Amino acid sequence: MALGEFALIQHYFSQQAVKHPATRLGIGDDCALLAIPEGYELALTTDTMVEQVHFFREADPELLGHKLLAVNLSDLAAMGAKPLAATLAMTLPKVDESWLAAFTKGFMALAERYQLELIGGDTTAGSLTLTVQALGLVPNGQALLRSCAKIGDAIFLSGNLGDAGLGLKITQGYHALESEYALARFNTPMPRVETGLALRGIANACIDVSDGLAGDLGHILEQSKVGACLDWEALPLSAAVLAYVASTGDWTMPLFAGDDYELCFTVSQENLGNVPASCRKIGQIDAEQGLRLKKSGVIHSLQGRAYEHFS
Amino acid sequence: MALGEFALIQHYFSQQAVKHPATRLGIGDDCALLAIPEGYELALTTDTMVEQVHFFREADPELLGHKLLAVNLSDLAAMGAKPLAATLAMTLPKVDESWLAAFTKGFMALAERYQLELIGGDTTAGSLTLTVQALGLVPNGQALLRSCAKIGDAIFLSGNLGDAGLGLKITQGYHALESEYALARFNTPMPRVETGLALRGIANACIDVSDGLAGDLGHILEQSKVGACLDWEALPLSAAVLAYVASTGDWTMPLFAGDDYELCFTVSQENLGNVPASCRKIGQIDAEQGLRLKKSGVIHSLQGRAYEHFS
Repeated sequence: MALGEFALIQHYFSQQAVKHPATRLGIGDDCALLAIPEGYELALTTDTMVEQVHFFREADPELLGHKLLAVNLSDLAAMGAKPLAATLAMTLPKVDESWLAAFTKGFMALAERYQLELIGGDTTAGSLTLTVQALGLVPNGQALLRSCAKIGDAIFLSGNLGDAGLGLKITQGYHALESEYALARFNTPMPRVETGLALRGIANACIDVSDGLAGDLGHILEQSKVGACLDWEALPLSAAVLAYVASTGDWTMPLFAGDDYELCFTVSQENLGNVPASCRKIGQIDAEQGLRLKKSGVIHSLQGRAYEHFS
Repeated sequence: MALGEFALIQHYFSQQAVKHPATRLGIGDDCALLAIPEGYELALTTDTMVEQVHFFREADPELLGHKLLAVNLSDLAAMGAKPLAATLAMTLPKVDESWLAAFTKGFMALAERYQLELIGGDTTAGSLTLTVQALGLVPNGQALLRSCAKIGDAIFLSGNLGDAGLGLKITQGYHALESEYALARFNTPMPRVETGLALRGIANACIDVSDGLAGDLGHILEQSKVGACLDWEALPLSAAVLAYVASTGDWTMPLFAGDDYELCFTVSQENLGNVPASCRKIGQIDAEQGLRLKKSGVIHSLQGRAYEHFS
């Protein structure tokens, strides 16, 4: 079926459940229009996913639709911003209606969960490349920045580390005993939106772990001009990741693997009692240069190495 | 030189001249933060350009940087919105520093002209695909919509039609006597930002001509539930396009070719005296179904045909 560009957009993306009260005009004009409520700042982020780089050709399009939005919502969560709206720029090699239907289903299910409205987009022909721009709201001055960690802050993580890295290894052929959990964490990450909102006024600095804890926490350290020491024994690791580390000896994987989309944040001593119970303390901000890790009494230096696409 | 992803972004895009007063936080955190001034709505648009679809592999990267931003600013202009900020998602096959330097130069020169701040982005590896999301401000309720054309409105165009279509034909091998003008209109379109701002409170409906006048005006007619008749003799055509039409007999090219990025808008009789002098009246909104064109006393029906990527 040779659907045209306009019909395609209209058919798959105009019929959505969510209408955000801030939207004055959605899909269908030269621009969308938003009325930002008084007392709020607008948080914006954009993330692209590329076939053969971020996902494989045979990837389930429903999972892809979920993950594309999830990685963007994770950035909003890391600012303490509440999801509002998004635009979607899709470059597609061809019009495959079953692919589009499944992709839309995955995208829209997550959008509906967070009451985010799709307000615009562009559809072009080419190699499969998907870009979302997500918009969120945060009360004036309450956004969680990377640059505000203080010496003496405790460092927290919102959930388990290294699951997605293990999931990726499984898709690449690594044999794990119980693979479903790690694969689900890799394919369908859940952005920590509620945690991000709960951290307003509690966390000093925050980032989402997309490129690996060492690199992402490294951004906080660099922008806050502080150092940190992590405690290996305190890292929240799933049974699956513990088994991987035990059988391979590769204990650095959870520290450098990306795609977990947990929040890493720092908290002053007086706010420790207000941290959500689901979060784990993994280390301490200090005045010493760089990022270090204490494991069995030995201090290891963790370089600021993160996943870089061109290196 | 093997620049990493982060260093690349930082080097080329962090050093810009424009700091917009609405920007609370620019490039470098999980999200950018904007404080939208009271009394204004935020206009958002996104447009992607793909190698071998929207431009050729050997395209001058400086012109490409200009055009990528220009096509997005054109959408803001069509809403009567003033440029504020943009994000840039770049998918690049490799890190080519001279390409990046030239691309950035073209992009930033136009951004500076309109005092638009680049507030975020994402850089990924893959086939060359460039997506901009542009943001603008328009006073509450003053945005120019596609849906507000009224029967009896005069239809205007902000500038010449078909130049970019001719420019495209020249890049494909068509020999024109004076090709520089048409090529410049194709490669470096100037978004009609000032005209769009001047049309607030004057125009009833407005769209930018990106996919061809027939198709784009067709969107106004469809969304406003009206018809229109254009006057061939009134169309603003350059000497270059007139020469093309005379020598080929292809008089429909200016009506169906895209990429001119002029504004097409409709104006009530009482506002005719307030239309900027650079704009030309090209026809009339009426109650009859569809889009028609009067040429040498004969009425031609113009199908709503526009450039569609998948047809």
